[in-house]
Amino acid sequence: MADHHINSKAIENYILSNPFKGKPENLYNAMNYIMQLGGKRMRPQLMLLSYLAVKNEVNNSAFNIALALETFHNFSLVHDDIMDNAPIRRGKKTVHEEWDIPTAILVGDNLLIKCYELIMETDFENKIPLMKEFTKMASLVCDGQQLDMNMPFKEFVTEDDYLKMIELKTAVLPACALKMGAMSAGANEVECQLFYDFGLNLGMAFQLQDDYLDAFGLESQIGKQVGGDILENKKTVLFIHALNHLSDSLKEELLNWYDNKSNSEEKIQKVKELFEQADSRNYLLNLKASYEAKALEYLRSITMNQTVKTEFDNLFGFLKSRAN
Amino acid sequence: MADHHINSKAIENYILSNPFKGKPENLYNAMNYIMQLGGKRMRPQLMLLSYLAVKNEVNNSAFNIALALETFHNFSLVHDDIMDNAPIRRGKKTVHEEWDIPTAILVGDNLLIKCYELIMETDFENKIPLMKEFTKMASLVCDGQQLDMNMPFKEFVTEDDYLKMIELKTAVLPACALKMGAMSAGANEVECQLFYDFGLNLGMAFQLQDDYLDAFGLESQIGKQVGGDILENKKTVLFIHALNHLSDSLKEELLNWYDNKSNSEEKIQKVKELFEQADSRNYLLNLKASYEAKALEYLRSITMNQTVKTEFDNLFGFLKSRAN
Repeated sequence: MADHHINSKAIENYILSNPFKGKPENLYNAMNYIMQLGGKRMRPQLMLLSYLAVKNEVNNSAFNIALALETFHNFSLVHDDIMDNAPIRRGKKTVHEEWDIPTAILVGDNLLIKCYELIMETDFENKIPLMKEFTKMASLVCDGQQLDMNMPFKEFVTEDDYLKMIELKTAVLPACALKMGAMSAGANEVECQLFYDFGLNLGMAFQLQDDYLDAFGLESQIGKQVGGDILENKKTVLFIHALNHLSDSLKEELLNWYDNKSNSEEKIQKVKELFEQADSRNYLLNLKASYEAKALEYLRSITMNQTVKTEFDNLFGFLKSRAN
Repeated sequence: MADHHINSKAIENYILSNPFKGKPENLYNAMNYIMQLGGKRMRPQLMLLSYLAVKNEVNNSAFNIALALETFHNFSLVHDDIMDNAPIRRGKKTVHEEWDIPTAILVGDNLLIKCYELIMETDFENKIPLMKEFTKMASLVCDGQQLDMNMPFKEFVTEDDYLKMIELKTAVLPACALKMGAMSAGANEVECQLFYDFGLNLGMAFQLQDDYLDAFGLESQIGKQVGGDILENKKTVLFIHALNHLSDSLKEELLNWYDNKSNSEEKIQKVKELFEQADSRNYLLNLKASYEAKALEYLRSITMNQTVKTEFDNLFGFLKSRAN
């Protein structure tokens, strides 16, 4: 339908006007609670833009695929928040806090199932390939989350380990969103793969930006305590790089900080100083920039009209320089 | 393939020879652990039998659908066990006990996703209708589990409430298994619906038999403590019926027992006596028999060859009189 414009407001409206319906009420209220908590709506935006890059107009079926991708993202947030014991999500109580863990488990399960319902309700001819793509992605995201859960128990984590984990946990979803948009609009396989690779590199840059902001962002902008990853002793690129580039004595100091579970502001400051001394902050920014450059190469290799190109550029620019 | 016979051993072999493969290892080991813990394999048996009632031979695609249904059953067991804090499943540690809760959440999530992978890998023409049927069932099972979780907080539970809950939580899955078997074999809609209704009534009887055994079975046969539902103050048909048929003073006594969280053998004995005094034991057996009679009516209304008919009768007889 011609009156669907691709911006986060149109997506927001589509989400609000298509709540999940069913009983018991507490289950469906909780499902719609997390869906309606807001967020960047990046994945549905990417999907709809790649759709528009191939076809002139989006329709309700395209919006349903976009909604399925946002629903999947919310499924993973609800279950991850249980695993991480997270009390707050987007400034509000997490589902397991507002309700309880059993409800939150079922909210996630049912959201995951509703993704398939949404995809099957579309009128696209190639629903099976779309569902195969979605299913492959969904399973990889679970693998990625398990890799993340395994990290604290792994004595030696390499940068490759970490990058593989964020690729699966975070980057395959935007990649899949872009590919599914192109697929459902009827793009050929080569083009679909270009969109996938664009999304994979964009997703990697996105997560590395998250990691950067977690350590060097502003509390007022990121909406949570700066240094959360440091307090949780997360073996991010910053930590791994610093460990490999500090002198033996400073390396010892970093390991000591990561050995204790203190919640102090001092720990955050000292660890950040060590990151700076190892030049890990710049290393991370360069690594992120290299993924952005690759993403942009893929994006540039795809033919599309100027309007969609501009929208992609705007979204890309926003994601690149975002402060939250 | 002609060498596939429908018995639980063939299904067991198919499960053992088709483990889920992927990384990280702990996730996939845990997925295969629960899949290989055994059980009656009732759902895949029902699916394959209804398939054979329509078509002469089963093939690998049929076995894949059967495996998807058993996989779904195991997904729900793993997540339910977390919600119920259950330490033991089929005489072994539950997944969240052997591993941990985050792993168990991801095991369930990934098993649910693998169901779709299995269905999509089949060579049936009508995969979308099969997936729609599966998805509808999957969402209803979540609804049913939420209804079950809500029960303790509901002051007044009617028999209809309870029956609706077990219909969704337990009975729609065998119903769906039988229908998907008939669908994938190419049966018409009327026949598919007869299989569904057969399975729904069979599933109701199955759960009521479980409830009966929980109170009146033998510990040596059911493999767990007799009276578990009573200790957990579960508002089963036995409890609801007794509450409605005891004198005021005995009703008071029953409510008092259900008010306390004691783990005593005395509580189990006293409550069982009250169930007997209200004739609730016989009421439950009659209710179960009425579902069995309905199930049998549906089964008899479906035309099939003598071999499959006999296999259905054997399975039906086994489920009816099982002591565990």
